[in-house]
Amino acid sequence: MRIDIVTIFPEMFEGVIGTSIIGRARQQGLVEINLIDFREYSTNKHNTVDDTPYGGGGGMVLKPEPIFGAVEALTGQQSRPRVILTCPQGEVYSQQKAIDFASEEHLVIIAGHYEGYDERIREYLVTDEISVGDYVLTGGELPAMIIVDSVTRLLPGVLGNETSAVLDSFREGLLEYPHYTRPAEFRGWKVPDVLLSGHHGNVERWRRKESLRRTLKRRPDLLHGRDLDKLDAQLLTEVKREEGIE
Amino acid sequence: MRIDIVTIFPEMFEGVIGTSIIGRARQQGLVEINLIDFREYSTNKHNTVDDTPYGGGGGMVLKPEPIFGAVEALTGQQSRPRVILTCPQGEVYSQQKAIDFASEEHLVIIAGHYEGYDERIREYLVTDEISVGDYVLTGGELPAMIIVDSVTRLLPGVLGNETSAVLDSFREGLLEYPHYTRPAEFRGWKVPDVLLSGHHGNVERWRRKESLRRTLKRRPDLLHGRDLDKLDAQLLTEVKREEGIE
Repeated sequence: MRIDIVTIFPEMFEGVIGTSIIGRARQQGLVEINLIDFREYSTNKHNTVDDTPYGGGGGMVLKPEPIFGAVEALTGQQSRPRVILTCPQGEVYSQQKAIDFASEEHLVIIAGHYEGYDERIREYLVTDEISVGDYVLTGGELPAMIIVDSVTRLLPGVLGNETSAVLDSFREGLLEYPHYTRPAEFRGWKVPDVLLSGHHGNVERWRRKESLRRTLKRRPDLLHGRDLDKLDAQLLTEVKREEGIE
Repeated sequence: MRIDIVTIFPEMFEGVIGTSIIGRARQQGLVEINLIDFREYSTNKHNTVDDTPYGGGGGMVLKPEPIFGAVEALTGQQSRPRVILTCPQGEVYSQQKAIDFASEEHLVIIAGHYEGYDERIREYLVTDEISVGDYVLTGGELPAMIIVDSVTRLLPGVLGNETSAVLDSFREGLLEYPHYTRPAEFRGWKVPDVLLSGHHGNVERWRRKESLRRTLKRRPDLLHGRDLDKLDAQLLTEVKREEGIE
């Protein structure tokens, strides 16, 4: 997969795309990530990329020419990449969307800064507007990194088994059960006996139950409308009784 | 404000915390951001920070000692900072939470990597578990950066008026209206006439209406239960009629 990031702050990305899992995936050729400074596509002599808004008011607005120019230089004649804009007005990003993006051959991500975008960029250039959450950031750079990271880890060969396993529970829509490792006692706080018992069936049952408990207590929305199998239904009943819930 | 980030990948953060608005805020002394490598607080000779899970199964689990050690070295005797853990099981991050954090004097953010955390870290060290969204990342580093960025921009003196104005609409719970800047016509696509009219009242009315339209079409959840004043109610009725909505 190829991911092109269109930004005026390419230096913000180096630490994230050069380190750890993403860095390794790039070295192994599993993903190609390019940084394009759209200031280089400015069409005026001062190299500006923004201007004041029509209709007045504060703030600056990113001009259409540099961003159209940068993206079109990347896409060529035939290629039709997804062109993603990161902005608070976008569709709320989700794991399902990451899986969708991971199936593409070519993504272009436009990471604007704190300014608004000229509306014509949204209307005529962008295929997907994405918001990573309901909070305000200084720019679209971190959201672009979120997309790069969440998509890259889904590509074949990027994650070893040891990491993918841990995250399975989230992918199937429940929060993870509690994890424990050595020491068995730390400052008087002990690991639950069942995990030390060596009884595989009991461990699995405990983990599933705690996963349901955590989801019920923290993110009940994830359980709404969910089809529970017989074991899950029974465990959830036990949890509700223990927690004094309905 | 002081923000301490506890991580095994401090180099991932440099680009983000050294650039643009956050970088300038640090230079001006408006925020102090420290990176602490918790591997330095490992208590074993191999400097490991993780171990296999009790109860078996794949994945590695971050051990309690290095993270307790790193955080306690930062907090001293009296100081009681918020200790934030970034993880998919946490409370969903929001602008309201960013405002809450921005009122603190000292934040500690624990950014784990893809492994799970030993449950005792959550139970006895952490005050806030935060998830930045329902998607899976390779680690907690990007979520930590999201918190740093969203909080820092709220600190007094960090944003000039020119940037804060643009984002006001989001803070009051509606999506932004469309922005336009020069050229008035780009590839045949024109800026709406009203924005070129110079009639301030009409511009304001158009912007408010388009803000409501975008919110209704993209994020109707933001309008549920909202108290609309007379103008907003009227504009929303117009929008619904134009869009053919109920």
